[in-house]
Amino acid sequence: MLELFFAPGACSFVPHVALERIHQSTGVDFTPMLIKLHRSENHTPEFLALNPEGQVPVLRESGDVITQIVAICEHLDRSAPSLQLLPSQGLARSRALSSLVWINNTVHPTFTHFFMPAKFTDDPAAQAAIRQFNAVKYRKHLESIQAQLPASGSWGRPGLEGVGFLDAYALTLWRWGGFTGIAPESLPAYRLFVDRIALDPAVAAVVERERITLHTYKAPA
Amino acid sequence: MLELFFAPGACSFVPHVALERIHQSTGVDFTPMLIKLHRSENHTPEFLALNPEGQVPVLRESGDVITQIVAICEHLDRSAPSLQLLPSQGLARSRALSSLVWINNTVHPTFTHFFMPAKFTDDPAAQAAIRQFNAVKYRKHLESIQAQLPASGSWGRPGLEGVGFLDAYALTLWRWGGFTGIAPESLPAYRLFVDRIALDPAVAAVVERERITLHTYKAPA
Repeated sequence: MLELFFAPGACSFVPHVALERIHQSTGVDFTPMLIKLHRSENHTPEFLALNPEGQVPVLRESGDVITQIVAICEHLDRSAPSLQLLPSQGLARSRALSSLVWINNTVHPTFTHFFMPAKFTDDPAAQAAIRQFNAVKYRKHLESIQAQLPASGSWGRPGLEGVGFLDAYALTLWRWGGFTGIAPESLPAYRLFVDRIALDPAVAAVVERERITLHTYKAPA
Repeated sequence: MLELFFAPGACSFVPHVALERIHQSTGVDFTPMLIKLHRSENHTPEFLALNPEGQVPVLRESGDVITQIVAICEHLDRSAPSLQLLPSQGLARSRALSSLVWINNTVHPTFTHFFMPAKFTDDPAAQAAIRQFNAVKYRKHLESIQAQLPASGSWGRPGLEGVGFLDAYALTLWRWGGFTGIAPESLPAYRLFVDRIALDPAVAAVVERERITLHTYKAPA
């Protein structure tokens, strides 16, 4: 019994895609458990018992709970080693994990500062300053990612089939970029990458299940 | 040729202790490379070529560079599997990694908001608000850690010998707590844990090499 607690478009998209890949490749089933953030379902007593931080993703395997996206990814990688969701060894593995951790502790939180500044101060003026500062920083991070994205294949998994964690996280960060005001045409190679990754059968299935759109940017009227 | 770029008392203490443990157990040598943050040696062109984020730790192995503390820890764990710096498998491994990632993306950045608020806004009033808010949050995180620390043995490694990553990170976070104004006697179980972990031969060697004090709190005059 494998359950993933996810919210549409949140970073839980990354293990959601991995579980879907594992399902499509090996037949192992999982149950996607929808958590509606706009209804604060991540702050119910039941959910906080799973994760005191009130965050998705949470993986529950035969009753055992695992939190933190990076730990969940490493756990899923170990559970399906033949897929090499992370390269299996050597410097390639360390580098891919390094990029995953960097996204998780640097790029993702930059968006969080823009999106939820109240997590960092209760002063409204300071919140506005934080939003503005981090929208600029976030764009720089996406430019840095764009410079790292491969023109073909999977990010950080040269020569390996299908998508990995970095591909799915890159797509997620792209969607968030639209909310911060980044126009798709201003990062053309990144846009091409996202449109290509979206064709992967596991990614396509999860985009449909989460009912999310890839390109969230709305031009000012 | 194994080199660790570290700054005294920074989170590079964690892989520094791991490398010292590996050295004491297996004889493998490494070279500690001191980076003086107060002289901005982490922002020289040479260092930024190693890590564009300008952060320690950085591991260089036969010329290959690995950044990000969590990726470096996983790399070192793989290089010395017999030490089980992380439990080698199963839920114990996933849980220990989850705690390591949580510290890295939640507890550690809370201190960063207190210590370097200019990373999140260039508005001085907003910086002051961020400092105050995050000092409160940081104390809550250390209380949460105190509730998780074992009375004997290693955090997240029940039954295993020596110290692991979580033990060394917990000691580092404790030292930072003193700077935020947390009096040691207000977290007595955490203090006992730190004093006990400091007796480990690898921890003792690295504390001496980095020339750091465990208890940094200074009572108001």
